[in-house]
Amino acid sequence: MRIKKLQSFLLSRLGASDRFLGRKAGIDTNASFGRPWMFEPGYSTVRQNYPAAGSTSGRIFAPYSVYKGKAALSINPILPTFTKLESGGIKVDRRGVMMLKFWPAIGERKYDWEKRQLFALSATEMGSIISMGPQDSCELFHDPSMLSSNAGQVRKSLAIKPHADGSGYFFNLNVVNNILKTSERFTVPVTTAEFAVMKAACSFALPHIMGWDRYTTHPPRRTEGSPSRVDTQLLDLEWDK
Amino acid sequence: MRIKKLQSFLLSRLGASDRFLGRKAGIDTNASFGRPWMFEPGYSTVRQNYPAAGSTSGRIFAPYSVYKGKAALSINPILPTFTKLESGGIKVDRRGVMMLKFWPAIGERKYDWEKRQLFALSATEMGSIISMGPQDSCELFHDPSMLSSNAGQVRKSLAIKPHADGSGYFFNLNVVNNILKTSERFTVPVTTAEFAVMKAACSFALPHIMGWDRYTTHPPRRTEGSPSRVDTQLLDLEWDK
Amino acid sequence: MRIKKLQSFLLSRLGASDRFLGRKAGIDTNASFGRPWMFEPGYSTVRQNYPAAGSTSGRIFAPYSVYKGKAALSINPILPTFTKLESGGIKVDRRGVMMLKFWPAIGERKYDWEKRQLFALSATEMGSIISMGPQDSCELFHDPSMLSSNAGQVRKSLAIKPHADGSGYFFNLNVVNNILKTSERFTVPVTTAEFAVMKAACSFALPHIMGWDRYTTHPPRRTEGSPSRVDTQLLDLEWDK
Amino acid sequence: MRIKKLQSFLLSRLGASDRFLGRKAGIDTNASFGRPWMFEPGYSTVRQNYPAAGSTSGRIFAPYSVYKGKAALSINPILPTFTKLESGGIKVDRRGVMMLKFWPAIGERKYDWEKRQLFALSATEMGSIISMGPQDSCELFHDPSMLSSNAGQVRKSLAIKPHADGSGYFFNLNVVNNILKTSERFTVPVTTAEFAVMKAACSFALPHIMGWDRYTTHPPRRTEGSPSRVDTQLLDLEWDK
Repeated sequence: MRIKKLQSFLLSRLGASDRFLGRKAGIDTNASFGRPWMFEPGYSTVRQNYPAAGSTSGRIFAPYSVYKGKAALSINPILPTFTKLESGGIKVDRRGVMMLKFWPAIGERKYDWEKRQLFALSATEMGSIISMGPQDSCELFHDPSMLSSNAGQVRKSLAIKPHADGSGYFFNLNVVNNILKTSERFTVPVTTAEFAVMKAACSFALPHIMGWDRYTTHPPRRTEGSPSRVDTQLLDLEWDK
Repeated sequence: MRIKKLQSFLLSRLGASDRFLGRKAGIDTNASFGRPWMFEPGYSTVRQNYPAAGSTSGRIFAPYSVYKGKAALSINPILPTFTKLESGGIKVDRRGVMMLKFWPAIGERKYDWEKRQLFALSATEMGSIISMGPQDSCELFHDPSMLSSNAGQVRKSLAIKPHADGSGYFFNLNVVNNILKTSERFTVPVTTAEFAVMKAACSFALPHIMGWDRYTTHPPRRTEGSPSRVDTQLLDLEWDK
Repeated sequence: MRIKKLQSFLLSRLGASDRFLGRKAGIDTNASFGRPWMFEPGYSTVRQNYPAAGSTSGRIFAPYSVYKGKAALSINPILPTFTKLESGGIKVDRRGVMMLKFWPAIGERKYDWEKRQLFALSATEMGSIISMGPQDSCELFHDPSMLSSNAGQVRKSLAIKPHADGSGYFFNLNVVNNILKTSERFTVPVTTAEFAVMKAACSFALPHIMGWDRYTTHPPRRTEGSPSRVDTQLLDLEWDK
Repeated sequence: MRIKKLQSFLLSRLGASDRFLGRKAGIDTNASFGRPWMFEPGYSTVRQNYPAAGSTSGRIFAPYSVYKGKAALSINPILPTFTKLESGGIKVDRRGVMMLKFWPAIGERKYDWEKRQLFALSATEMGSIISMGPQDSCELFHDPSMLSSNAGQVRKSLAIKPHADGSGYFFNLNVVNNILKTSERFTVPVTTAEFAVMKAACSFALPHIMGWDRYTTHPPRRTEGSPSRVDTQLLDLEWDK
């Protein structure tokens, strides 16, 4: 069994991983970096400007949910936001995520939605799940307060482990809160069929979460109607940048 | 050969499976459950508000069909329906399905469409088919009257079994009706090529059946034109819910 | 090495295969068949109402082409056509295809487009190619005059065979014309990378060729704005047809 | 471990490969070639009519980026451009590409965007990456000045090699410039999860880069509203061209 351990940049206590370096670089305003704002590296769950709770105007509710004996699990995509540049172009402002929600069973056929815990998968973390084979495991760590003064006070870990008989996976979410002195654990068995839906849904959503659907719906340099003959004198971007 | 047995929640006689619990939870109006109506768990073939037969206005007819010696089989997607929330958002009202139709051969090159039987695959059941390897089997059970007084009177089972030589699968639909005292069986051999089309078609249709295409065509929180700088004070949904 | 032999219904001389039965059923107007026009089984290359040559208005030219030593090969999709029903629905009129074109090299870096030969892959034939593993072969037979008085006079066969070293495939098209007493053969080696593009392109195009994109762009029964509560008394299509 | 070596037509010093022949054929205006302008074979990075630097109007900035210890790597698609034909149809003018950008780390969490080097993947080169298994390697060669007087003066090579422990790949870009007497090398380790995102993103973008989304958004011969009965006398394109 191959174990994939992903130390997310959100777990600041692990020190500066490669990816964490990148994140910092995006914040760093050192002039030698060039145009860092164009390259938002990674995704931070800390800084999401979601609309306030209750303000659900325009929101879509089509989660994929599985209800099991001890807890329920749902997933749904959250699209990126964009900002318009003065040049007329647009760039990704906040990366999209795949939101996982766990909430506990509190009796037969009863679940407590108010006790839900969230885990927001970045594009790369979705890649980790998409690439899982039937015997693979995956473990992801988040610190939702990483960049604030509460860094390290709350740790979330999501572990996905295959059933011994190959009939699916266990999704385990563990949330340790040192401020509230609480520790919560959710376990949801996911069948092979349900996992196939999640993988297919993630594969479908990934380009949209990355904002790549914008490349396809707004072809920026179409020359329809004005046939432009190839000009060998023109700047070659690969060559000259 | 690995056997995947899926006991659908629709077969109520098997007792309360995990998924069945979930279904019930969605119906249960116990206040402690939170917002159950946002999380329609699973799909029930019992309660579809299809337009009445004959009312085909706006319908699309592009099934993928295979005609074999004893019976024919066609598949086509049926999209979910949505309802508008007072908040302005929309939510899935009725889940979409992949509809399988079987109808018998009644002579050389003749098929009796009036004797067709239907089997509506939920998203998870589609996941079961999408994840099938060349040696896998799959068995699904439905009771279309599960939640009515006729529960248990009709049983449908769909079995997909690989050919011994790996050249495809047998699709077997069995419909036992204790009210009409009838039992019908359809067998359609499906080649590897035809199954590949079905898998590709299911993979394409799955996000649409789940309603996830709405996430992509109606980006809810686009901030184009109003560049919003990241506000670290803003509510972090993962952290605070 | 597994050999997939597909005897297309277009090769009438092989007798009535399962699929051929289906084709005939679609033509048969026997009343006991029900609504055969709704289930155009298979695809016939015989009856295409293409616009006349030269009338390219609205056509798209974006083939994927590979040029090799003895011949060139290009592929491009041709979408289905639809007809509007009196009920307001639409149905597929002519199935879409993936068109393969072969044309010979006639010297160094010179190819003779006028000597091209075509081979139109149906959805199922595309499924055959999509499901090919690195060691698989595939052979397809067409008789473009099958349903006319010239049936059997022209035979086309497309064979796709893996290179011995696993570095790609040979695409061989053979066209035997008993009327003109000609026999032409095209051989195009296709690398693994080029084949990956063809598979990805076919996977992308398949739902469109089947007309399934219509299911997604024209959601027929959306109830947005008119929240319809589930009516358990409503007709259940799976149960009652 | 299987090694895939792709000698791109851009490396003119390797002589006339099959693909190079094709490229030349597209330029050749020999009348016997037929309609060569309809079949732009391959993609040349030499002749791109990009807008001048700074002119970013309408551009989309949503790259997928990974920041590692020695360098950063980002990928983003560039769509094809089209020209309108007198017939009313449209054809691909300049092929799309997947643009890879490498830029070096110049200190802790600092990267020098001004020192970036580009590598533009054609559709076939994307196919090479998409089809890579966990133990496969891939090597691509470009000469951005191939068709100019500077041919051979600059050589770019991109090598993708698996980690020994199967935990991902190394992306190595080497740029040797005989004019400036410089040689630059970038090495970016890419995890399995990150590579899965790249493959998924390439798979999503490939049809758009090929221009095939035009086939689906502009169905050229739809007959909706004017039901056309099949005319067996009509020209069969497969048969008569």
